[in-house]
Amino acid sequence: MIAVQKNLITKSDKKIVLLVADGLGGLPRPTDGKTELEVARTPNLDSLVRKGITGLIEPIEAGIAPGSGPAHLALFGYDPLKYELGRGVLEVLGLGMELKDGDIAIRGNFATIRDGKIVDRRAGRISTEENRRLISILKDRIKKVEDVDVIWESGLEHRFALILRGEGLGDMVNDTDPQKEGLPPLPPEGKDGPSRKTARILRQIVDKAADILKEEEKANSILLRGISRKPEIPSFEERYGLKSLGLANYPMYKGLARLVGMDVPELGYEFESLIQYYEEHFEEYDFFFIHYKWTDKAGEDGDFNKKVKYIEELDGYIPRIMEKNPHVFIFTGDHSTPAMWKGHSWHPVPILIVAENAGVDDACRLTEREARRGYLGLRKSKEIMQIALALSGRLKKFGA
Amino acid sequence: MIAVQKNLITKSDKKIVLLVADGLGGLPRPTDGKTELEVARTPNLDSLVRKGITGLIEPIEAGIAPGSGPAHLALFGYDPLKYELGRGVLEVLGLGMELKDGDIAIRGNFATIRDGKIVDRRAGRISTEENRRLISILKDRIKKVEDVDVIWESGLEHRFALILRGEGLGDMVNDTDPQKEGLPPLPPEGKDGPSRKTARILRQIVDKAADILKEEEKANSILLRGISRKPEIPSFEERYGLKSLGLANYPMYKGLARLVGMDVPELGYEFESLIQYYEEHFEEYDFFFIHYKWTDKAGEDGDFNKKVKYIEELDGYIPRIMEKNPHVFIFTGDHSTPAMWKGHSWHPVPILIVAENAGVDDACRLTEREARRGYLGLRKSKEIMQIALALSGRLKKFGA
Repeated sequence: MIAVQKNLITKSDKKIVLLVADGLGGLPRPTDGKTELEVARTPNLDSLVRKGITGLIEPIEAGIAPGSGPAHLALFGYDPLKYELGRGVLEVLGLGMELKDGDIAIRGNFATIRDGKIVDRRAGRISTEENRRLISILKDRIKKVEDVDVIWESGLEHRFALILRGEGLGDMVNDTDPQKEGLPPLPPEGKDGPSRKTARILRQIVDKAADILKEEEKANSILLRGISRKPEIPSFEERYGLKSLGLANYPMYKGLARLVGMDVPELGYEFESLIQYYEEHFEEYDFFFIHYKWTDKAGEDGDFNKKVKYIEELDGYIPRIMEKNPHVFIFTGDHSTPAMWKGHSWHPVPILIVAENAGVDDACRLTEREARRGYLGLRKSKEIMQIALALSGRLKKFGA
Repeated sequence: MIAVQKNLITKSDKKIVLLVADGLGGLPRPTDGKTELEVARTPNLDSLVRKGITGLIEPIEAGIAPGSGPAHLALFGYDPLKYELGRGVLEVLGLGMELKDGDIAIRGNFATIRDGKIVDRRAGRISTEENRRLISILKDRIKKVEDVDVIWESGLEHRFALILRGEGLGDMVNDTDPQKEGLPPLPPEGKDGPSRKTARILRQIVDKAADILKEEEKANSILLRGISRKPEIPSFEERYGLKSLGLANYPMYKGLARLVGMDVPELGYEFESLIQYYEEHFEEYDFFFIHYKWTDKAGEDGDFNKKVKYIEELDGYIPRIMEKNPHVFIFTGDHSTPAMWKGHSWHPVPILIVAENAGVDDACRLTEREARRGYLGLRKSKEIMQIALALSGRLKKFGA
């Protein structure tokens, strides 16, 4: 981002709200050729669209369906190809674990191993309850290896996550999971000094865990993957001079907001609680990221009508957000999750920006079709933050 | 630019005119939601729009308001992030000084220093007349230091510019201005061999100037900033094979045209004189850059109606430009200066290209709104020159 590279950022007290409806973009259903956004009744959004400017944003590149990590980093103005998030890091954030500088994050599976060979990479998909029982034992018995803290967390079924916290740990370590049954697990090996330390710790953890779990019928071993380090991401405060608040119900999004230095309160699983918190703390921050998860869930389920319903539900919250008069209001999705596609897709996502002197636009509704003709054009998601900075008076001129 | 990198450029005698209305792009006024271009009556432009193709161009990046330097380099087809113009260079060009290869350009301030500390960084904003008196003394007394020519020029109030001309000079030298009063000025230090020579020359200039000015009450010293070298920019002739003419009334734009090797006559401050020169010398050149300053001035003043009036005035000159039948005619701005914004802004700028077989378009007027739907789409300014080369038959095919 040139604003950052060239030190063009200056101060302002104008507030920015970024409302993200996860997986917002959609595709037409066969019955009437309309998308979720075209079917939804969104009177509040519509009246903002008439005041604002619209366009389409592409999270990463043409044809690339992004995960939540890169899609959000792009919306936050970080080049998602430069700031890559390891699998372990995303797993740990998704389980709501706190990640500190220097931490190594790892995805784990319980597995069944007999005579040194992997019989079942998922330990017969043991129940989540069974998983919790085993993790509580491991938590208790393997707290520290050498000078390194070991932090365990249960996931669903056979999955768990691990954090190593200590000095001088690297992340250039191979997966122990060979991704194939009938083979022995691979010993962790480090590619440089710090990574050799990580590998040595992990070998001890794998051996101790196998010893502790040896009487278990299915989950008698662990496999480790996605060994990755908390990435060095400059915070919103450093990068943009923005004191920022991240409001989300789900751990992954809270974790992503924390990664870029946002304050993130724990507010449970009701969207209402995010909006209340926003209303009560509006004066304290410059930037607000508000995450709405349900549109994505409905898209993933392939439930067109449910996605429409959730878009309409979110529309009902918009007046409360605008009541506070943020100087810049942005509404978009991190990526498309069309019900017709039943998953994240590459399709560009409609975006609306409302701000004083934003630009000229004839759009009346925020839909894939109308947004295509909007003033913002088709852009990369990572460009949006720079426009928000400009519209809130935070950018100096480049060159004289 | 791939046309240059891959040697795709070939010869043609078809002429290209680039008419730049400075700060052309605008924003809607609140009364009727119309922009300057939408309000202006431009019958000549309108009739060209029906024949040509339109679009929007972004000078640098989303959200970035450019200065005139990078904005013009981009229109001339040079990547403005690759060819950066130092502050000293722009100051020198803005004062109409001639810059030669190897020259070092510097911005200066008169300042008040007492007991080695800066009391007033701007010497009480002395009058421009007072400035001229002092510069004429310095010009006379400090013409050469070692083997380096020293060229002085007055600016407004306390400002002046300096060129060092000689062998082996570098520009990695710090500002002597600490940007804060109560501190002593910083001695110039060079970061490499050639820059150490520049620093040594500058230390002597600073000392001599302080000695010459020691009896002055306010302007008893000088501070130097933005020490920069004339950038190595390949000329239009080398890069595109174009013999080019730059027509502008204001020094900065004449300087920018000279930087890329255009012939630039001195014609005073009447736009009419540029058009007459164009008419009289049309046969002698391949490429014509014609700069119209007044739209930007009105935008900077926040005077919507005046900007409209100047757009209309410029429209009156268009038939004379077209009378010569240039093969490619481009009309655009270097950036937007919306009257509603009162300054350079990031907003994409409408562009019109008229040429045989340019493309298909339904635009009837050149406005921000209609241009958004134009054939050219939303592009970076630096892409336009390549299209001009193609339309004038100057580009070979890439690959077989």
